[in-house]
Amino acid sequence: MTRKIELEAIGVVRSPVSAQTDEGWGQVESTIELLPQFAPGLSGLDQFSHALVLVFLHEAAFEPSRHIRRRPRGLSDMPLVGIFAQRAKDRPNPIGVTAVRVVSVDGPQLRVRGLDAIDGTPVIDIKPYFPEFDRVPEAEVPSWAAQLMTRYF
Amino acid sequence: MTRKIELEAIGVVRSPVSAQTDEGWGQVESTIELLPQFAPGLSGLDQFSHALVLVFLHEAAFEPSRHIRRRPRGLSDMPLVGIFAQRAKDRPNPIGVTAVRVVSVDGPQLRVRGLDAIDGTPVIDIKPYFPEFDRVPEAEVPSWAAQLMTRYF
Repeated sequence: MTRKIELEAIGVVRSPVSAQTDEGWGQVESTIELLPQFAPGLSGLDQFSHALVLVFLHEAAFEPSRHIRRRPRGLSDMPLVGIFAQRAKDRPNPIGVTAVRVVSVDGPQLRVRGLDAIDGTPVIDIKPYFPEFDRVPEAEVPSWAAQLMTRYF
Repeated sequence: MTRKIELEAIGVVRSPVSAQTDEGWGQVESTIELLPQFAPGLSGLDQFSHALVLVFLHEAAFEPSRHIRRRPRGLSDMPLVGIFAQRAKDRPNPIGVTAVRVVSVDGPQLRVRGLDAIDGTPVIDIKPYFPEFDRVPEAEVPSWAAQLMTRYF
């Protein structure tokens, strides 16, 4: 089995938000600044309304004993669940996947809304959002997750 | 800017499909076999109906001159669009993101339906599918993308 995987950032997030936070990202506009050689790769993305942005959560730090199972948001009324059953940042491979609104494309710069990544976050990939692949109408979550969403979103 | 990013696979895909293909994954059932130390991380995932699975597309090979812009599926009636405006495998960082049905969890084994990854594909991360984050009801795609979906799905 291939164990080690090496990637290289294709660009960086320029965001007005520079400190880690869990909420309130919905209306944040930020710019993904790609390395110049990747600018042609954005061609046509502005025809999609949304994209998936993959980032490397460079400030995350996974400690197995603390994070392999934890209470979501550290809340005492949440159940103890595995890291793969929650979206917490401190994961074995700290990659974030966020569905964002595509605002505009200008050369190597992609302007987006709703990206929950702080200023300086390395970007790994950008994919167009395809409803047929990415939108799951019948998706259901456990009650703790529904409560968490009601509380914060 | 952080350029090099090192990850380690958390497990591997065991799938009945062993050759690359673009279509027909919807009903394929496969097993994600995690390394034993990550088994506790699956705790509670079976309460979600769906998950996002991130894999390393280990057979992909990005060649800038051929792939930075290409016609989707190599079809002559498709427009020339950037790699970040399509879901092709040969991308700068070949990571696949797929929304799958969670079938069952058994120790380090996660059974899923709809994972478009061949047998032996390294797995990078598993996240629960949260409708509030991942389901975009208003997402729109350009006409070429809609045509592609009609043709294949």
